[in-house]
Amino acid sequence: MNVPQKLSQLGEFGLIAQLKKSAALNPGVIKGIGDDTAVLKVSRGKELLFTTDMLVEDVHFTRAIKPTAVGHKALACNISDVAAMGGLPKYAVVSLGVPATLSVNYVADIYRGINTLAKKFGVAIVGGDTVASKKIVINIALLGEAKRSEIVYRSGAKVGDWIFVTGPLGRSFPTGKHLTFTPRVKEARFLVEHFKPNAMIDISDGLVADLGHILEESKVGAVLEETAIPRVRGASLNQALGDGEDFELLFTLPMRTAARLMKSKIPGVTFYKIGEIVPRAHGLAMVAQSGLIKPLTPKGYRHF
Amino acid sequence: MNVPQKLSQLGEFGLIAQLKKSAALNPGVIKGIGDDTAVLKVSRGKELLFTTDMLVEDVHFTRAIKPTAVGHKALACNISDVAAMGGLPKYAVVSLGVPATLSVNYVADIYRGINTLAKKFGVAIVGGDTVASKKIVINIALLGEAKRSEIVYRSGAKVGDWIFVTGPLGRSFPTGKHLTFTPRVKEARFLVEHFKPNAMIDISDGLVADLGHILEESKVGAVLEETAIPRVRGASLNQALGDGEDFELLFTLPMRTAARLMKSKIPGVTFYKIGEIVPRAHGLAMVAQSGLIKPLTPKGYRHF
Repeated sequence: MNVPQKLSQLGEFGLIAQLKKSAALNPGVIKGIGDDTAVLKVSRGKELLFTTDMLVEDVHFTRAIKPTAVGHKALACNISDVAAMGGLPKYAVVSLGVPATLSVNYVADIYRGINTLAKKFGVAIVGGDTVASKKIVINIALLGEAKRSEIVYRSGAKVGDWIFVTGPLGRSFPTGKHLTFTPRVKEARFLVEHFKPNAMIDISDGLVADLGHILEESKVGAVLEETAIPRVRGASLNQALGDGEDFELLFTLPMRTAARLMKSKIPGVTFYKIGEIVPRAHGLAMVAQSGLIKPLTPKGYRHF
Repeated sequence: MNVPQKLSQLGEFGLIAQLKKSAALNPGVIKGIGDDTAVLKVSRGKELLFTTDMLVEDVHFTRAIKPTAVGHKALACNISDVAAMGGLPKYAVVSLGVPATLSVNYVADIYRGINTLAKKFGVAIVGGDTVASKKIVINIALLGEAKRSEIVYRSGAKVGDWIFVTGPLGRSFPTGKHLTFTPRVKEARFLVEHFKPNAMIDISDGLVADLGHILEESKVGAVLEETAIPRVRGASLNQALGDGEDFELLFTLPMRTAARLMKSKIPGVTFYKIGEIVPRAHGLAMVAQSGLIKPLTPKGYRHF
């Protein structure tokens, strides 16, 4: 392994010091960066949520993308997963693989992107690993917390539930939303505190694919209403149904609670009712504008 | 992204199912693989230990290395870090970046290597991410637990402490020890339960470099005894002092406790006394066989 002068100067830029300081401000961090592991307190009566996500250069992003956006996305995907369980994100460890030739500014910007989002959501960066790699690789593992009673699984959808999403769907890649999105923590916490969804997931594989996960785990079917599916400006129906990485929440609520949700107003948040949960035998279908019912097949985004 | 038929068959090999099943057997796992995040219980009165480690093909290993060994090492490094804090490893998430052309057997063997070691130490694999990548990348993030009173930091070494290592050092790369080592959990738990070391670290950067970390964090110096440093067969003194990835524990104990440790016997474990902690002003030095005292400079293994 070579010694990239530039990268070994990272310390001088005070980045690690900055991360150390911000972690030290978090009362749950007994020891952050600087020992064999971080030492953390778990809040009384809370369960742990644990998730991880890997981004690879030329697969998930290219050098043409701003490194702050890459860092932002790497953490945001994980926060979105914790939100989809109904929890609050707390502690992260960041592994970074970088070529020896990469400029220190690029690396600093990745960390800056991570750190800005971490601060916004009260996440402490408590450790990590930095290694040499030909292509840039970022892996973040995130811990969140939630009361047992607040946790929402994919498996709880019930026949008669109404199905909602938290925002317009489709074209996340061409619009750049997949890089810049704000994970729906506020919305998820609002939901678990006041409405308790029966099932919830974040849309990463695409609406139909992720609804498919809920249906499979909950052993139910669903009917979507074509005209009710909110689309990002310029997105076709198929894009709204199939595109990946929207990172909106998809959840189901008992009808009575759902009606109450639709009357409630929180600033800057819209919940879109897009369909209903039906018995499993009906599978997944969509009522078109014409009144015609057509079956939908979960496929969406494939990782390979 | 292409669809590697071979890799998409992974499910059929029952690997994920196997991981799911083994995690389900762990009473702390409320939900393992299969939702947005894992849901985990933390034992009453325990603090969390959190660490991560990334291995990259052609930097940390090559295709010539058995994939089971690569998987083993990826988890073993993390377990070693938890051991060095005095804790017990509990839950891991595994991110794997693999080329679309990689054989399913290779991937299955990586998981097998991880899984065999995980079982041995009671670690539940509770989640992960699988992505496309030109070079193979493995990132594992590990959670451990320990009572607050048992946790051993790098920063606690005191003047007068005796310094120990848990095994012979040097030549970890040519001997293959860096791939096949058993993390020193048993030894670490024995120590924290019966002797409470003042400071502890696992030797990953090399004896002198890692002792340097303890000295820096504890604001003390040390004198090593050249003839007392246990060497792997064929290892030179410089190799024992400088080679990385021995993954033995390096720890310090108050003299009185140290004397008690040296009289205690546990099957298959030897603790080697290699020196003493001295005031910071003395820096780090070694008493040679000739009686001559020479200063040592921490450098050892550099990641870049």
